[in-house]
Amino acid sequence: MMICYKLTIAYEGTHYSGWQFQSNAISIQQLIQEALAKLLKKEKVTIVGSGRTDAGVHAKAQIAHFYHEGNIDLNMMLMSLNGILPKDIRIRQVEVAPERFHARYSAIGKEYHYHIHLGRIMDPFRRFHYAHIYQNLDVQLLKLAAQQFIGTHDFTSFANEAHKGASATNPVRTLYRLDVIEEQEGLRLEFEGNGFLYKMVRNIVGMLIDVATGRKPLENIQEVFKAKDRQQSSKAAAAQGLFLVRVKYPD
Amino acid sequence: MMICYKLTIAYEGTHYSGWQFQSNAISIQQLIQEALAKLLKKEKVTIVGSGRTDAGVHAKAQIAHFYHEGNIDLNMMLMSLNGILPKDIRIRQVEVAPERFHARYSAIGKEYHYHIHLGRIMDPFRRFHYAHIYQNLDVQLLKLAAQQFIGTHDFTSFANEAHKGASATNPVRTLYRLDVIEEQEGLRLEFEGNGFLYKMVRNIVGMLIDVATGRKPLENIQEVFKAKDRQQSSKAAAAQGLFLVRVKYPD
Repeated sequence: MMICYKLTIAYEGTHYSGWQFQSNAISIQQLIQEALAKLLKKEKVTIVGSGRTDAGVHAKAQIAHFYHEGNIDLNMMLMSLNGILPKDIRIRQVEVAPERFHARYSAIGKEYHYHIHLGRIMDPFRRFHYAHIYQNLDVQLLKLAAQQFIGTHDFTSFANEAHKGASATNPVRTLYRLDVIEEQEGLRLEFEGNGFLYKMVRNIVGMLIDVATGRKPLENIQEVFKAKDRQQSSKAAAAQGLFLVRVKYPD
Repeated sequence: MMICYKLTIAYEGTHYSGWQFQSNAISIQQLIQEALAKLLKKEKVTIVGSGRTDAGVHAKAQIAHFYHEGNIDLNMMLMSLNGILPKDIRIRQVEVAPERFHARYSAIGKEYHYHIHLGRIMDPFRRFHYAHIYQNLDVQLLKLAAQQFIGTHDFTSFANEAHKGASATNPVRTLYRLDVIEEQEGLRLEFEGNGFLYKMVRNIVGMLIDVATGRKPLENIQEVFKAKDRQQSSKAAAAQGLFLVRVKYPD
């Protein structure tokens, strides 16, 4: 009997080409697939993630599923996988998935955090996990700008094409929450929504930074939304500041 | 005229042999000395730190001084040093030192933090900055044990010899504060004292962990103090959890 297993995974993306398998670079998906194949004594195991994360992007709780005929001792699997995997990838949990579970298609929402270091000198302990903005940044203006992204919008101007000739997906998404939390010498932006287009969080953060550092006027945000043109918005913020924090599924 | 300059330095110790210059390994002191020599166009510049930190130990605000004849543009020096140094070493501040300042001998106190991850699975984002204790640990017992270290004691049992044949120093130190702060899936131990013997913080943490995980009885601490014998106490806790957070000088 085929059983579907669900993995909860934390990883520091610094040293990888991203989540998704690539033939010419080392991805997180590949390393987990290889570890599973070794443990389950199979030639190949395919895992399906909730979505990709780019090179340098991190995850505190990425979700993936895979199928295997028969029972696995879940605790043994957890400890063995972590024994094989490098220390920047940790399996946090192995479970039997709920019925008809699919890591990607069952997801009904996601939460991302974006970390910004605002100190003049970079903090060496944050160098892989925060973007460094050393220009003067108006936090109140950033909070005001952030509010314009909350709600249901066509996010075409804030989405990159996933790859050349990618089939058009519906560009309307709902952002439930975009909280700007002040930390010591920094900011944490918390995004919660029903789904995110490719590079959407980093593109929004890029725009917020442009507005908050005075490179673009606040009014520009509405114009960019209306233009439905990626070229009109800002450069994506650096990958290293982004964390996939939670994937939400129906109870 | 010789002017004494004071540096405030943050570093992640992971990739270094420690603070102190060694002929056969790369130290933080050496890299800063080389960067200064390059900027000041000298063959050699010697900096004096507030004290050494071991391989893998971190600093949020190590202090060092050096002498140079003549004025330096402090802001230029700050930016140039950080331009030369690797990103895991950051100069946070360059100042003209107060009169008769000596980074080591003027210090009247220090603060260290020790980070412990208690989750069953290690957090990949903490792997270089936390020690991982996966055994059951009784936090209340650890707090009780910590109290026994506060105050003025002969810390001989919790000090290593700095090097073979090191001249005997007075082993009496005063610990003003040892706070145990609970974090998400972890602990932060905050040590503040008038001075610390070689490996004293890590040796105390080793003992605290032995007591809190049930390997040694609470009463053992007083016996170990009395024995004045390093062999009687516990293994030093891992270097990666230790941070030099502050060096205190007279106002």
